[in-house]
Amino acid sequence: MHIDPAALTPADRYKLLIGAVVPRPIAWVSTISPAGLLNLAPFSFFNAVSSSPPVLMFAPANLPDGGEKDTLRNAKPVGEGGTGEFVVNLVPDRLARQMAACAEPLPYGQSEFDLAGVATAPSRRVRPPRVAESPLSFECRTLRVIRLGPGLPSAGNVVLGEVVAITADDGLIDARTHVDAAALDLVARMGGPSYCRTRDRFDLPHGRAALEGSGKGHP
Amino acid sequence: MHIDPAALTPADRYKLLIGAVVPRPIAWVSTISPAGLLNLAPFSFFNAVSSSPPVLMFAPANLPDGGEKDTLRNAKPVGEGGTGEFVVNLVPDRLARQMAACAEPLPYGQSEFDLAGVATAPSRRVRPPRVAESPLSFECRTLRVIRLGPGLPSAGNVVLGEVVAITADDGLIDARTHVDAAALDLVARMGGPSYCRTRDRFDLPHGRAALEGSGKGHP
Repeated sequence: MHIDPAALTPADRYKLLIGAVVPRPIAWVSTISPAGLLNLAPFSFFNAVSSSPPVLMFAPANLPDGGEKDTLRNAKPVGEGGTGEFVVNLVPDRLARQMAACAEPLPYGQSEFDLAGVATAPSRRVRPPRVAESPLSFECRTLRVIRLGPGLPSAGNVVLGEVVAITADDGLIDARTHVDAAALDLVARMGGPSYCRTRDRFDLPHGRAALEGSGKGHP
Repeated sequence: MHIDPAALTPADRYKLLIGAVVPRPIAWVSTISPAGLLNLAPFSFFNAVSSSPPVLMFAPANLPDGGEKDTLRNAKPVGEGGTGEFVVNLVPDRLARQMAACAEPLPYGQSEFDLAGVATAPSRRVRPPRVAESPLSFECRTLRVIRLGPGLPSAGNVVLGEVVAITADDGLIDARTHVDAAALDLVARMGGPSYCRTRDRFDLPHGRAALEGSGKGHP
């Protein structure tokens, strides 16, 4: 079947994209307003985009009235009225409910940390605190924001941030920077109200060997 | 434990990022060179970033010598020497081996379609063909490329592309644009040689109801 995305309603276009581009990793982003008020919200238009320099991106959509979400207001560069800082906290299965609760729209300045009963821990290089219970947090300085439809309802804003510090649970990352995926136990976003876990894993070699190798866990 | 990313070697920084930012959705990107030669390569620094306008991003890293990967050479805007077009093909479990095979570095102009035995199908709005067996393909026009370290080894390049056409298997998307996740059966990238499936799913309500709701499949 062929679909012309321009012929869909905005709501249907969103539903199709989030149902098809899956699974999406989740950034549980903590920020602080210039006045010092905390915010915590989940985003699944999120990924790493570079390792040297280490850069993460997430893309908050504009509000239905075209305005900016609190996270974007806080994380955008100082020259644009923000603080230029954010923290990406990763979300294991055991924190999924608290993360999902933070999708609740609250008035600007009202903290989702309080709503969801999430404890803060101080960051080392940036002002926004991290989520104390998250197994791994990236402290980021905002490099820039690319606006895909400034002032338009639902248009995305690509926030690029350089990772300046990392905090992880003891034992999660070994001396060779191997991350223990089973201990991390992250969840990801699928379409609608659906999530997926990262427990059903398999290995494959890279390159032409993948066509013939045994591929641990993959027939 | 605290980690200063600037104190890691580039290889370790990469290993940490791809082990921690998981699961990453996979874009199996088909492009064509200005001379008409085909390329097909997988990228997991990939996601949607906006639904209105519908925009996808993927981020190919520079080669060890600081040069551009073939996909970037082909997909960058016409004004920068590329074709300004690419197709994102999604990867179900049954195509995982062929996708992984396309990570093989081949000389520019030598086609991974041939290496991995992948059949092409014509696209409708762009020149690069899609992967015939992929259950869902997004035809994209490149909006811009943001270079995070031009000419530097391993630095990322964020390619933003507007979705201009979608092709999907019949029955995969219903009249209400709901995508059948089980039929799609996508795989995603974890750290090292590891992948994960999307079969271990659960539902959660958004917002404060998540703290108390029953959450289908989530205790």
